[in-house]
Amino acid sequence: MGDDRKRKGAPGATVPARVVAVEGNESVERADSVAAEEPLEIRVVAEIGGQRQRHSVAVTMRTPGNDFELAAGFLCGEGMLRHQGDVWRVDYCDASSSQDPNNVVEVSLSPGVDFDAERLSRHVFTSSSCGICGRASLEAVQISCPRVPIGTFRLYPQQLVRLPATLREAQPVFSETGGLHAAGLFDGTGRLLALREDVGRHNAVDKVVGFLLLEARLPGSDRVLLVSGRASFELVQKAALAGIPVLAAVGAPSSLAVELAREMGMTLVGFLRDGRFNVYSGADRIEIE
Amino acid sequence: MGDDRKRKGAPGATVPARVVAVEGNESVERADSVAAEEPLEIRVVAEIGGQRQRHSVAVTMRTPGNDFELAAGFLCGEGMLRHQGDVWRVDYCDASSSQDPNNVVEVSLSPGVDFDAERLSRHVFTSSSCGICGRASLEAVQISCPRVPIGTFRLYPQQLVRLPATLREAQPVFSETGGLHAAGLFDGTGRLLALREDVGRHNAVDKVVGFLLLEARLPGSDRVLLVSGRASFELVQKAALAGIPVLAAVGAPSSLAVELAREMGMTLVGFLRDGRFNVYSGADRIEIE
Repeated sequence: MGDDRKRKGAPGATVPARVVAVEGNESVERADSVAAEEPLEIRVVAEIGGQRQRHSVAVTMRTPGNDFELAAGFLCGEGMLRHQGDVWRVDYCDASSSQDPNNVVEVSLSPGVDFDAERLSRHVFTSSSCGICGRASLEAVQISCPRVPIGTFRLYPQQLVRLPATLREAQPVFSETGGLHAAGLFDGTGRLLALREDVGRHNAVDKVVGFLLLEARLPGSDRVLLVSGRASFELVQKAALAGIPVLAAVGAPSSLAVELAREMGMTLVGFLRDGRFNVYSGADRIEIE
Repeated sequence: MGDDRKRKGAPGATVPARVVAVEGNESVERADSVAAEEPLEIRVVAEIGGQRQRHSVAVTMRTPGNDFELAAGFLCGEGMLRHQGDVWRVDYCDASSSQDPNNVVEVSLSPGVDFDAERLSRHVFTSSSCGICGRASLEAVQISCPRVPIGTFRLYPQQLVRLPATLREAQPVFSETGGLHAAGLFDGTGRLLALREDVGRHNAVDKVVGFLLLEARLPGSDRVLLVSGRASFELVQKAALAGIPVLAAVGAPSSLAVELAREMGMTLVGFLRDGRFNVYSGADRIEIE
């Protein structure tokens, strides 16, 4: 797929900034760096009625880097891509068709892969003829993906509590700017397989899922996904669509995150820090004495 | 506008949950509570061609409470509402037109207020004929709102460093669940005027802006907005559209947040904690000795 980080002129993950640092009555102006945030437009190129057509499906504010994974993972979370074979190729936009080609990624679908623009837009604007509710959201997800099989995958608490330190040690940009969320993918022994950073937590998770998709490693059925902050409904949904059975968060989960994890048969761990954690769903995957 | 919190059967800000708490080899099952997350559909009722029509403009995952403010603030951030007079009324959906009326809010525009559906959707899907870039995003915001006037509004560092503690002391749900972002609105002396909480930081800010709009207190030209986490482009944009000259964050800002704050003449403060802070833009509003 090509390494999108090496593109000439591509923006980096941090940007220099001058700051005035103030403490008490003292102030000093100094050089600093901040986490880069730029818009990424995601386009899908699909064959519709015998003609190849471009569709702009989303703009997300993201930290540059791993953009191909972000685009692929985003489309996986929307239910459009399911495995590597669905993707024909991924490219940055041609310089002739955009003012800012480094911020536009085009995902070309393989012949025969269905592009359902209406389905995509339903994620953004719901029908106004009928209200929505938590129940409807849960049902929409359940229709899109099967329950995560319980399988034989088990985790030990001693492994789980070490994950945040492993993530932190491997997180290069955060330590520089303090400004990035991280998502880490681990195997059942606590080995870090992939780390992705972004100003948006959902983007960091999309990058991990896109990594799995582009490397033909979906579903992530014996993997643990760790996120640096809180666990929302959206993150559980993304993990479920990638077939990842365990989502762990350093922070708190939301009510709908807990509800969806239970419906999907997933393990949801929250407050994973300082050597302890809470299990909100699927405690049977954890070997508690 | 009526107090949307008192609606019968309305969901609360927290939800009880059973958890298995694990530390070392010990585990205990106990009652806990998590921050409530539910979808809110925002509808706009507008007169188009002599007929009143309903449009579903967004669904956001939010913590129930202050839903009218959230809807009004969201539409202010989209440039559709500018002051209280633009709003005819705000209601929960009629039970006959939704399965879940507590999760649907309808904002009726005053006669003569323009509803530009195309403009709204441009926020979500950009034109595929032309790429986007940070520059284009910045220009779009600058077109929507004038630069924040510098005015005579000044802050002392001693006041700024006290804001996070004031916010934390007043934040009721966070202390219970650890799961909510907060946005606090302060005057120039450090007095807390409004505090709103949500699983989404952008929602907490929308609630504060909606409070100002519905109380006819826009623009917030001598106010400080403090957010509990990081400062993104989106949050600076929301503050700019509400005319709030100072955005302070407990965490780090992103590059585009810094750039937009500078373009708009706003003061952007980051890492406001432990008695110190960094100023990334507009240091002239802070009385540094």
